[in-house]
Amino acid sequence: MNPVLDHRSPTNVRRNGGPSVPGYRVAVLGATGAVGSEVLKVLGESDLPINTLTPVTSPRSVGTLVTFRGEDLACVALADELVDSVDLVISAAGGAVIEDWAHRFADAGAFVIDKSSAFRMDDDVPLVVPEVNPEALTGASKIIASPNCSTIQLVVALSPIHRTVGIERIIVSTYQSVSGTGKRAVDELNRQLTDIVDAGIGCARSSVPPEVYPHQIAFNALPQVESFVGGDPYTTEERKIEKETRKILGDKTEQIGISATCVRVPVHRAHSESVNVETSTPLSATECRELLRHSPGLQVVDEPEAGHYPMAIDAEGKDDVFVGRIREDASRPNCLNLWVVGDNLRKGAATNAVRIAEALHSQALLRVAVG
Amino acid sequence: MNPVLDHRSPTNVRRNGGPSVPGYRVAVLGATGAVGSEVLKVLGESDLPINTLTPVTSPRSVGTLVTFRGEDLACVALADELVDSVDLVISAAGGAVIEDWAHRFADAGAFVIDKSSAFRMDDDVPLVVPEVNPEALTGASKIIASPNCSTIQLVVALSPIHRTVGIERIIVSTYQSVSGTGKRAVDELNRQLTDIVDAGIGCARSSVPPEVYPHQIAFNALPQVESFVGGDPYTTEERKIEKETRKILGDKTEQIGISATCVRVPVHRAHSESVNVETSTPLSATECRELLRHSPGLQVVDEPEAGHYPMAIDAEGKDDVFVGRIREDASRPNCLNLWVVGDNLRKGAATNAVRIAEALHSQALLRVAVG
Repeated sequence: MNPVLDHRSPTNVRRNGGPSVPGYRVAVLGATGAVGSEVLKVLGESDLPINTLTPVTSPRSVGTLVTFRGEDLACVALADELVDSVDLVISAAGGAVIEDWAHRFADAGAFVIDKSSAFRMDDDVPLVVPEVNPEALTGASKIIASPNCSTIQLVVALSPIHRTVGIERIIVSTYQSVSGTGKRAVDELNRQLTDIVDAGIGCARSSVPPEVYPHQIAFNALPQVESFVGGDPYTTEERKIEKETRKILGDKTEQIGISATCVRVPVHRAHSESVNVETSTPLSATECRELLRHSPGLQVVDEPEAGHYPMAIDAEGKDDVFVGRIREDASRPNCLNLWVVGDNLRKGAATNAVRIAEALHSQALLRVAVG
Repeated sequence: MNPVLDHRSPTNVRRNGGPSVPGYRVAVLGATGAVGSEVLKVLGESDLPINTLTPVTSPRSVGTLVTFRGEDLACVALADELVDSVDLVISAAGGAVIEDWAHRFADAGAFVIDKSSAFRMDDDVPLVVPEVNPEALTGASKIIASPNCSTIQLVVALSPIHRTVGIERIIVSTYQSVSGTGKRAVDELNRQLTDIVDAGIGCARSSVPPEVYPHQIAFNALPQVESFVGGDPYTTEERKIEKETRKILGDKTEQIGISATCVRVPVHRAHSESVNVETSTPLSATECRELLRHSPGLQVVDEPEAGHYPMAIDAEGKDDVFVGRIREDASRPNCLNLWVVGDNLRKGAATNAVRIAEALHSQALLRVAVG
């Protein structure tokens, strides 16, 4: 029997209370990756009733053990047999993998929450941040896209402003951590750092060559996140922020001006964003602070003179988006500056995907398998 | 005899060709600091005729040896005797020190080029970036201020644009290196980094407590450069960028809107800046690139698809300002995005001060001591 389907095997499935308790059969794709590991963690903390959990990886990692709700599970490869035996797929796999499989799962009746960019801009696929546009989860599409990490924290911070006073224009410069690129990137940064520090203060260049990034990331700020394609002077990451933000905020006619500069910095985890926002009608810094304080998924940390503002090292492992340094920009009417920080692996990836799953559950859209 | 005045002593002075060759008697204040060391280096590479060089430090560092044009010189303390025996003072000392001494040197006929913020906004003191506003060097004021590091690279990149099409508004987010804070900051960053990397990938917090910065700088992005004072939601660094940029560009009536967000990142050296600029009349990205390519003190590095753009690790030790990622911002007419990088210790400090000295020399404003 294929181990993926063997719900009695303790090595690759997880039950909640045995076969008579209703719960979902969930598969997590890319389960050993940086985002996938975090999905297992956040899913483990969630109240979502899960009957079986199948961790899926690329063929070369099959058998790798991952932990879910305290139990070790062995990873399996994607296989035809899995298609009919899950109710929910959360995919942290690469776009190429999920592009092939998503429709098969969906056709078989499972919901697919996909973290890749494969489906995000499809007109038929909702692109969802549950705090921002839960209404997009109608069930009409079984495939649901989760946005890019840098987009998620931006829209969580800006959507309350957009709903209240309207947003005319967003200018964002990012300070993105390496963990979004994966575990190899964290390792590359660490090896370069150690090499340079060991060589002494005067040395800027590491003898550890860049493999994951186009240039050395240690002690550097790389004004390239993702790639330049087709002569576009904006990177694919910068275009994602533009397009995804518009889709999530429901700006079909492109009324909101958005300009992004995406920069990779030698930070392990959590992205920071310097955001300048122009609103349609006035919103003071005080009003903005109050508004965001009462908005979902946000924490306002804004007592700068006391040294309190959002920071990457504080956001790590947190599910909220942190916003601070909220201040009026006197260079133009109706403009505010904000500093927005979020854990790119939690709210920027895993947490958002799990929150989508929870929203599907609470709207009774997910089918429940009774074992 | 006071060693400062003893031009025959090889330990604390430097001659070019002996007493009969004309040259300046130069004192460098703060000679053992991060900026002061760089001033000695850049001055050593300069063609400026220097008869004697007196390195000056705080009393506790007296006797420390520094190198100038291949010779070891012993540092001395600031003393009354120095006042009448120098033609040029380049100060990389703290504002409190130079505030006390600058006028005494100036009254005695010496020029004082000051890197601190003590005199920058004084109406009578020119604030000079030689590539941008050399006309401010009239000799009417013996005290000349050199701007803040983050301002210098910004105005070198933007002044050609301002002169050509006029600038309406500047929005800048900085990625500032730790070396501007001094050698202790570099050391603090390195110790925190090593500690965290040694502890393993999962750890975000260093056991090395922050002393130089208000928070851990390793693997973090600190949205505070300098300090918050008097309830102003902008830091003193952010206000410097606003005010100094206006003064250097000659914008007395505050027609240019400027909004800055200054962020410290775990980079050893060179500041990067993400700049959004709105011009009075259109300037295409192609025109901007051409314009900047033919502007002084600038290098355009802008072939992003080939991986060529300015980076901190490439700017280190260079005297030019590097600009790239020049692209039109479609979110508003007449807007461009730029990525501007400069070595904060070279062009952002030492090089600019030495270029001011060279400009004074070429305008024959400096008095020449014939030994």
